[in-house]
Order: sequence, then structure tokens, then C-alpha cells
Amino acid sequence: MSSNWLSGVFHNPSGVYYHDVPIGLNSEVTLRLRVPHDAPVRMVLLRCAPDGEQQMIQAQPGNDIPGWSCRWFEVKLLLTNQKFAYRFYLLTDQGGWWYTAAGATRYVPTDHQDFQILADYHAPEWVEHAVFYQIFPDRFADGDPSNNVRDGGHIVDGYPSIARRWGDLPIKDQGGREFYGGDLQGITQNLDYLQDTLGVNALYLNPVGTAPSNHKYDVGSYTQVDPHFGGDAALIELRRHLTERGMHLILDIVPNHCGSENDWFKAAQADATSEYAEYFKFYRHPHEYDSWLGYKSLPKLNYNSLKLRQTMYAAEDSVMRTWLREPFAIDGWRIDVANMLARQGQHQLGHKVLRGMRRAVKEANPGAYLLGENFFDASDHLQGDELDATMNYRGFMMPLYHWLTGRDYNVVFERAYGDSFPLDTVALDMQWQAFRSTVPWIINRQQFNLLDSHDTPRLLHLCREDRALARVARLLLFTYPGVPCIYYGDEIGLTGGRDPDNRRTMDWNRDGWDTSWLGEWSQLIRLRTNSPALARGSYQSVCRSENTLAFVRESRQQRLVVVARRAADEIDRLNLAAAAVPDGARYRDLLSGSEARVENGFLAIPPAATQIWEELWT
Amino acid sequence: MSSNWLSGVFHNPSGVYYHDVPIGLNSEVTLRLRVPHDAPVRMVLLRCAPDGEQQMIQAQPGNDIPGWSCRWFEVKLLLTNQKFAYRFYLLTDQGGWWYTAAGATRYVPTDHQDFQILADYHAPEWVEHAVFYQIFPDRFADGDPSNNVRDGGHIVDGYPSIARRWGDLPIKDQGGREFYGGDLQGITQNLDYLQDTLGVNALYLNPVGTAPSNHKYDVGSYTQVDPHFGGDAALIELRRHLTERGMHLILDIVPNHCGSENDWFKAAQADATSEYAEYFKFYRHPHEYDSWLGYKSLPKLNYNSLKLRQTMYAAEDSVMRTWLREPFAIDGWRIDVANMLARQGQHQLGHKVLRGMRRAVKEANPGAYLLGENFFDASDHLQGDELDATMNYRGFMMPLYHWLTGRDYNVVFERAYGDSFPLDTVALDMQWQAFRSTVPWIINRQQFNLLDSHDTPRLLHLCREDRALARVARLLLFTYPGVPCIYYGDEIGLTGGRDPDNRRTMDWNRDGWDTSWLGEWSQLIRLRTNSPALARGSYQSVCRSENTLAFVRESRQQRLVVVARRAADEIDRLNLAAAAVPDGARYRDLLSGSEARVENGFLAIPPAATQIWEELWT
Repeated sequence: MSSNWLSGVFHNPSGVYYHDVPIGLNSEVTLRLRVPHDAPVRMVLLRCAPDGEQQMIQAQPGNDIPGWSCRWFEVKLLLTNQKFAYRFYLLTDQGGWWYTAAGATRYVPTDHQDFQILADYHAPEWVEHAVFYQIFPDRFADGDPSNNVRDGGHIVDGYPSIARRWGDLPIKDQGGREFYGGDLQGITQNLDYLQDTLGVNALYLNPVGTAPSNHKYDVGSYTQVDPHFGGDAALIELRRHLTERGMHLILDIVPNHCGSENDWFKAAQADATSEYAEYFKFYRHPHEYDSWLGYKSLPKLNYNSLKLRQTMYAAEDSVMRTWLREPFAIDGWRIDVANMLARQGQHQLGHKVLRGMRRAVKEANPGAYLLGENFFDASDHLQGDELDATMNYRGFMMPLYHWLTGRDYNVVFERAYGDSFPLDTVALDMQWQAFRSTVPWIINRQQFNLLDSHDTPRLLHLCREDRALARVARLLLFTYPGVPCIYYGDEIGLTGGRDPDNRRTMDWNRDGWDTSWLGEWSQLIRLRTNSPALARGSYQSVCRSENTLAFVRESRQQRLVVVARRAADEIDRLNLAAAAVPDGARYRDLLSGSEARVENGFLAIPPAATQIWEELWT
Repeated sequence: MSSNWLSGVFHNPSGVYYHDVPIGLNSEVTLRLRVPHDAPVRMVLLRCAPDGEQQMIQAQPGNDIPGWSCRWFEVKLLLTNQKFAYRFYLLTDQGGWWYTAAGATRYVPTDHQDFQILADYHAPEWVEHAVFYQIFPDRFADGDPSNNVRDGGHIVDGYPSIARRWGDLPIKDQGGREFYGGDLQGITQNLDYLQDTLGVNALYLNPVGTAPSNHKYDVGSYTQVDPHFGGDAALIELRRHLTERGMHLILDIVPNHCGSENDWFKAAQADATSEYAEYFKFYRHPHEYDSWLGYKSLPKLNYNSLKLRQTMYAAEDSVMRTWLREPFAIDGWRIDVANMLARQGQHQLGHKVLRGMRRAVKEANPGAYLLGENFFDASDHLQGDELDATMNYRGFMMPLYHWLTGRDYNVVFERAYGDSFPLDTVALDMQWQAFRSTVPWIINRQQFNLLDSHDTPRLLHLCREDRALARVARLLLFTYPGVPCIYYGDEIGLTGGRDPDNRRTMDWNRDGWDTSWLGEWSQLIRLRTNSPALARGSYQSVCRSENTLAFVRESRQQRLVVVARRAADEIDRLNLAAAAVPDGARYRDLLSGSEARVENGFLAIPPAATQIWEELWT
């Protein structure tokens, strides 16, 4: 029995299928499922289990919705649980099918892929239209040379600091102790570039607190900006300018561990009866203690300590709350190694601590964005009561490169045993779907997508310096569900391999810039910040051929069809009938300007590697 | 690229692949994966993430193990987390493959299907060799007619009780108020039958506490045996006999709700300031209150009350602990509607309460079996810190009937919109695998498998009175991972549709019994209670053709090959090379006595619908 009609069955907790904004507990909502006109569907039921008991609610035929050519089924129900999970059951002439966020199966799926609505969930609203720009402060711009680190000015993990000249390449063996002089004043001075030339509207800065190293993950103070970055005054000044411009700012906090020069740790090490001793776990005082991945210079914080939990996040004057308030008034935190936080052997407090951090952060600033670093499956932290998002390495970036370049960076970047067979297109789409399906849609919409960071080789390096490939990756960064982040310098063609080569200084010699490359970034940034379909819209793949991935993103206001080709491919049309696009619908490619029309269910497409077709709604 | 070799890749956290008994935290363990001799596997890595950080540990080639014909890869590691999750990565000449409890994928899977080991987990050891027998006490045997309920002797939900004659059919409209006189003395008097004739070694009784109805889910007292069942003395006497026989006993508790005649509820209803008022949620005292699925006769207990939590399970003299101690000394609890327990709208205390119940129960009796009723995906409650098992309707029974009889009972039993297309064999195997894959193996091994219960039509009814079909279902009950439970009377051919027809009285007129049918049950029970492979062994399917499902269950001590056919099928041999069975291995079918030998990787099999081949190890 053929089940091609299944590719045209669709629901997503967004847009015409539900709502675009979070809904309160005990509200009545309508959920809609669409099926193709010719699908052998006799009946549709919505399956949910509020308070644990299964309910099968028969869906009613829905009215036509202009712009969609399909049959609609709709269910009205009361959102009685804060986390409301559901799936659909389609009774057909070919037996019953279950339809979840992971697709359709004949057999009853487990609950993990149910669609999920979060009632009473407060999303940080500004995030949906954000395009982030990540800055590694020592390398972006030197606004005030007088605060620069000098050769031998201080000690970093046992070795003297080194002052480097802007533009020189970082040196591998010099690790965290080479300094180029970048600071917060340098960022403030370049906001015209960031906002007007490039178009980004949010910044993510690597840590700015005092610390010996250039990266500052070896936390010295949790409460003061490093003087080499301009101190607290420079952050306040940056904040003031960002606020004037309507731009947002998130900072990087390292609650998992501190540096061995941290005051708490020094006090704890000096005196086993110190009030700070309980912040750490000493196996044998003072020299044997828990540390991050065994690096003794990074003592791991011990969240069994109630006092530490109070100090870090829970108390009114805690570290995390303080920076969220005036005068810093940051718009969110990126939590370093959130995957490992408060977890050590039999002490697994990760969920408890992240729940507590969420409560604290949202109390201090209800609009704050709580982002966690996690290279793996973070779905257990993304259910609405912990993180708002993670850096989406695993659910977006790594499979993308595996498909695009044939390199699997899953294992460890550039290790000899990485898989060098390209992922096929179906596998790419399935992996993306698998990672979306275990997370509520409202969270997927906020996921922090990226193509590189201070922890990975850069985009161009990963694409073997092939800009054509990089363009495909970039297209997907801006069109995949989630919010995009650009790693400083990618937009002017900065390249670099693994750390520290990925942390080269920004090149401010504008005469040397490839302005057409920069212009392409800027075009996509503006497209993303103004697109309702990219901010909120659903995702439905409509082509997964050998080299072509195409998908529809649609909201109530806009429908886009994105085409990404990793190589030439015979695919010259897309089946948009499966996406309920009516015949006669007109499209314009926002990249090339071409126009086309849907005929007999298909949209003809050219060979170009990157296409973004917008349906022309009047 | 062909990937047939993948069907021969295998691991399970048991037997030669790991261990059969739970291991302590921080122990060093060895995990083994096998691949076929000709698999294009260049390297195997074990992927785990203790404390959240990914580790890729390269596996070493392992030594041959007599009885297995394959290549081995092994990894030694320290169990540093109580819940230790892992998967394998196979780097091959055809790219990398990930292998989890849900099978192999080219793309990185989410964490939910990782293999899972529970360190420091104390399984109730007696359960692995248990065969349960479920008794609905009013209908099994009347040991003392003097305690029988009389016509009009009391009131049940507003109507007088009715005394019925043993052997007469239950009457639908009389619901819970018709009584046949069965009691605990009747069970005690028939232990020879249960132990010697039939061979079961554990009893599960529906509730025996005082309550107006025949089923006693409308709890009157949580602490006293109903006098019509013989009172506390009869339970103590039953326990004494069971202990002498080495048999186990679990009872049914209803902590989700009580009956409206319950003393707590009556006190709460009489006085809004009563100390029991907080056990319930009154919307408007005294007549509007939370109840189970809206049945006012079953007030729902409110676990926001600390005092209720203490009384029900947490305190030393709590309800749940008391019955686990002498003189009742029961061996475990079956928790009624565990899926709904302590869940109501915004108050979702289900996990908290079940964790608390586990702690209490295991403190009172470390060998107790904590079983929950749950018709759906219960994996969130089966991670080692809540339930030991659930009644495995969803992970075993329902898909089995859907495959066998073409009836999908998922939705609601016998509802008009049930799917009547048989599940194909691949879908059956995939559904079983999906439900196993989200639960640690040690828990799968304890899952409470059943073919019917007081809540479903009986086996024969579900099989349309076709004993040939019922034999196939029964074969799978005794050979699928988990422990089997027989619903009283199935073994003598008792049939019946939905409640109350499924609660007919046991027929003690032995002259009328089909002794050959009974003998078949007894044979399987003895086979199950004496089989290490069925108690502990892994599960690997080796045939999923149109009508035939075949799978291997193996432990260090025994290898079995089970063949189940729902109808005739052209399959006349099984590929046992994929299960690493060496050529020349000799097999005997424990049901027919036939013998056969593996040749060129295949075992020839006859057309019989039920086969259990044991490999003849010397």
C-alpha cells in the first residue's frame, strides 16, 4: 500500500496550526492538522494524556484557509497542563498512522517525540528577531591601548603574559597567555559597523570578568569586569550605547568552575575551615581537589553547598542576578559547559541547579535569554524549566558540515577516526528532525544556531576555504529554525583552524575587505531580522535528494521555500503540493530575483546552490 | 552500499556482553560488542558522557568466546555514574554508524535510546524467575461461605449488594455490587493447584482492603483486609502458606484515590477543618472536590499534603510500609493508576511521589517489587529511581494483539475507530524495540508482561476463541523479555469480554477441564522458571517476515531461538549467522522435540506456529 500521501500530512505547534505566541494555562486553543486532498484519511484523533491518562479527541473537519490547498482537521481543547504533549492518530483506508514531531509510524511511538506546547511559558520575545554576533573581546578591537596587557605584566597558569601585535597569528603553544589588546571600548567604537554596515542586533561576548588568561574562562572574579577590557565602566558605557541602538547583549558565565587564582578558591585552599571551603571538593586539602576535566588550574565548584547556590544565583544579590540589573542590565547569560554543571559522580545536581538558575534569572529580568553551552543532546535541559536554548552544535551545525563537506566533527574536531563519508541528505534531515522532535517548538525557535565559535575551526576552514560551500552553510544558518549567530570576522572572510587559530584578530583594514562577501552576510541578516517565517515559522522538508535539501518555512504572514544544494543535482522542481501550496502561487527568489509559478503542484527551480523563494502574498 | 552486516551487530547490557547482576558504583566493567566476521568495521568506539561530557573510548579486539562465531570488540571502563548511558560508534569502510538500544543509524541519535546501566541498583532478585498468577479475589475460590456478602447486606455506590451463585455470568449493569463469595481462604486452599499442578510461584491479588465494591478500588480502609475476604487473619494465613512454599505475593494499592465511604474522606467532608481535609481538594466544601476521572465516588487524594505523603508511604508506620512488614510481609506493591498518581493540572507531583514511595518501600523490604499500572509509555517512571516495572500493556501486549489478530486495542478497547489492519511484523518488532530502548535493560527484564487482566477482555476472547492464535500469544508471553503473568482461569480456558465478563468465576469442576490446554501452560511455566535465557537473556530478532517473527534470547548459560507465526509463511530457515551462532550448532525444539543443526549459517525450521529451539550446549 502506497503511503506517499503521508509526506503531505503536517502539523507544527505554530502559525495556522496553533499560535505564534505562548498561551496561558487553562486557555482554550485550536490545533490543526492538514492532509492532502487525496489522502485516504477517514478520521483524525488528537491523542494527549493530561495528568497521565490518555484521551483521544476526535478532530472535526476544518474550514479552508486561504493560501493552503489541503483538507484540515481541527481540535479545540483546554491547556490543562503546563507541559502539554500530544500527537495525532490518522485512521485511514490503509490502517492507522501515528503522527508526531518525528514523523509518521504505523506503530505507537514512545512519548519522547510528541508535539509539545508549554503553557504559561515566557519566551524572551526579542530573541525571535535576533541575529547574534559573537565577540572574543581580546581579538575584536583595541579601543584603549592604555589598558593593554604587557609582556610579563602578569602570570597566566605559571607563565608570563605575552603582548602580541594586532594582526599577527596566534601561536599554538602560547595558549591563553598571548594578548592582543582588544577591549569593550573597541566594541563600543564599532557599533556603527555592527548595526549599520552588518546589521546584527545582539552581541554575545566571551567572558569579560577578571581572569589571568585571554579567554577568561579561568574566572578570577565573578563580579568585576577585567581592567584590561576596560573595567566595569567600559561595560556600562557599552550597555548604554547598545540600549540607545535597541541592541541586546548577553554575557558568558562560568559557574561550573573558576580559576585557581579565584579569591574563593585561594581562601579555601589557604584554610580548610574557611567559609569558602565548601564551595570546592577537596579530596586532600589543599592540593587534591575536583577540577574541570582534571585541569588543576580550573577547580570545579561544588553545588552541594547551599551557600554557593545562594551566592551564584539564588540570593537577591547573587552573581547571576546582579549583572542582569542596572547598570549592566545584560539581556541574558550564556552558561559555559552547562552540560557538566553541578554533576560529579554520584552527585548529579545539574537539573536542580539549572532550574534554580532559571528561576533566579527570570525573576531578575523576565526577558532574559538563558543559553547553555552543550555540544550534545541537550533536550533534557530544554523542556521549559531550565534553559531557553543551547548552542546548537549537535542539532544543527555538526550534521550540516557532515552533509556538506563529508567531515563528521561529532567525535572530536579533526581527530583521525572521524567519519569522512558525507551524510546523505535524508540522514541530515532525519538527524535535524530527531533533535527538534524531543524539544518543544517554542524552544526550537530560540535555539542558538551557529557555524563556528571560539571552540571550533572557522566556517571557511571547515569548508576547505571554498566559499561556494560556505554560502550553502550560511544559507542554512539563516533559514533553519532557531536564531543565527555569526562569529566575529566570518563576515569579512576571516579564517582559521583549531584554537587558537580560530581566534585571530579582526581585520580593520577595510580596504582589504571583500565587500561583496560582506554584503551577502548583510543581505541575509536583514532578511532574517525582517522575516516572520524565519522567526516563527514551521519547517517541512520537501526535497531530500542526493545533493539537494529543500524545505518550507511558513507562518501566518509569510511562506518561504529554501533550496540548498551541496553539489549539482538533477532535481529541477519541487513538489509543493505536499506543502499545501496552491497551483498558481507565485514565487520570487530573494537571492536572484527570479520569479516562478507553481504548476500542477510543482515549482521549477534553477541549478543555483542557494535559493530562498518567497511566496508573493498580497 | 550494502549494510546487511548491520543485522549482525549486537550488544545488550547482559550476559557475555556485560554482566547479569547489578554492579556497584565505581566498579570496573567490560562491555563487549560483536560484529560479523565479514563486517567492514575498522574501529569501534564506545561513546558515553559521564557527568555530561562526551568520551569516545576506543574498543580493543576481544578474544573469541566459545559458542559465538563473530569478531568481538571490548571496552573496559569505570561506572562513575549511577545511571551510566552509552552507545557505540562503528567506523567502517562505508562511513560511521551509531549503534544504540534502538538499532543503527548513520546520523547521531538523541540520548533517549542509549544503552543504560544502573550502578548500585538493587533489583528484586526473586522476580527474574517469577511467573505471576493474577487473582481477582471475589471470583477465584470461596474458601469460607460464612463470610460471603449477602443480598442487600450493604450498599455499594447507592445500590444494595447482590449475592450471586458461583458459575453464573456477571451482569453488566450490576457493576461492582455483585458478589460471588471468593476469599483469601479460597486461595490458600488451592495452593497445591497453583504450585504443583500449574507451577506458578508468585501471586498478584487485586485489592483486598475493605471497600464496598467487589473490586475494592473504592478504598474503604488502607489498613485492614475486607472481612468478606476473611479479614487480616486470612491474609496472614495465606502469607504463612506461601512462605512455606517459597512463593511470593504482591498486593494492589490504590494511592491515587479512595472511595467516598473512606474514613478520611468522610471526616474531611463532615468538617472542613478536619485534619483530613487537606488529603483532598475541595473546590466547594463539602460536595465539589477532585475525583478520579470525574467519578464522585472516587475522591482523588491530594499529595500536596505532606501529612498524606507521610501517612501513605513516608512515615515508619505508613500504609505502604506496614503491609511489607510482618505479619503480612508482602513482597511488593502493584500501584493502581500509577500514571495519574499525584498529578492534577498545575500540580504535577507524580515523579516526586513515586520516588518517595520507592525509597519507603525499599527501606521496609529491600527485595520488594514495585509495579505500576500504566497503559502507556511509562519510561519516565522506569529509570531506576521510581518503579521497578509496569504492567506492560503498551510495550508488549497491545502491539502483539495488533500483529496477531489485526485489532489495535491501543485506542480504547473495542472502540469503533480502532485500527483493524494487522500490524506488519517489522512494525511489531520496531514498536517492541522502541519501548525497550528507552528503559534500562535491568528494568526491561523485570517488566510485568501480560495477555489480559481484570481491565481487558480475556486472551481467548481477544483471539476470537481461536486457540491456535492464543498459543502464539502465550508463547510470546513466556519468551519475551520481562516476567509473565497469567490471569486466573486462562489456563483452563476461561474466556470473557469486557468488564465484568472478564471476571467470571473460576471453574473448579475439574472433570470439565481441557487438561491438554492446562498442560501446555504448565509446560511453559516450568520452562520459564528454569530458563536462564528467558530470565536474563538478551533479545535479538532474526526474522521479521510477513507472518513469522523469530528471535534469539541468550545468556551465558543458554541460547534459545523462538519462532512465532501468526499464519503460514514461506520462511523455512533462519539466518543464525547474524546471531553469531556457529555452524554445526545443534538445536532441539522444546515443544516438539525435533532436532536440527545449523548449516551455512542457517537453521531449518518447520511450519509450526510455535517453536522454542534450545541450543544443545554440553
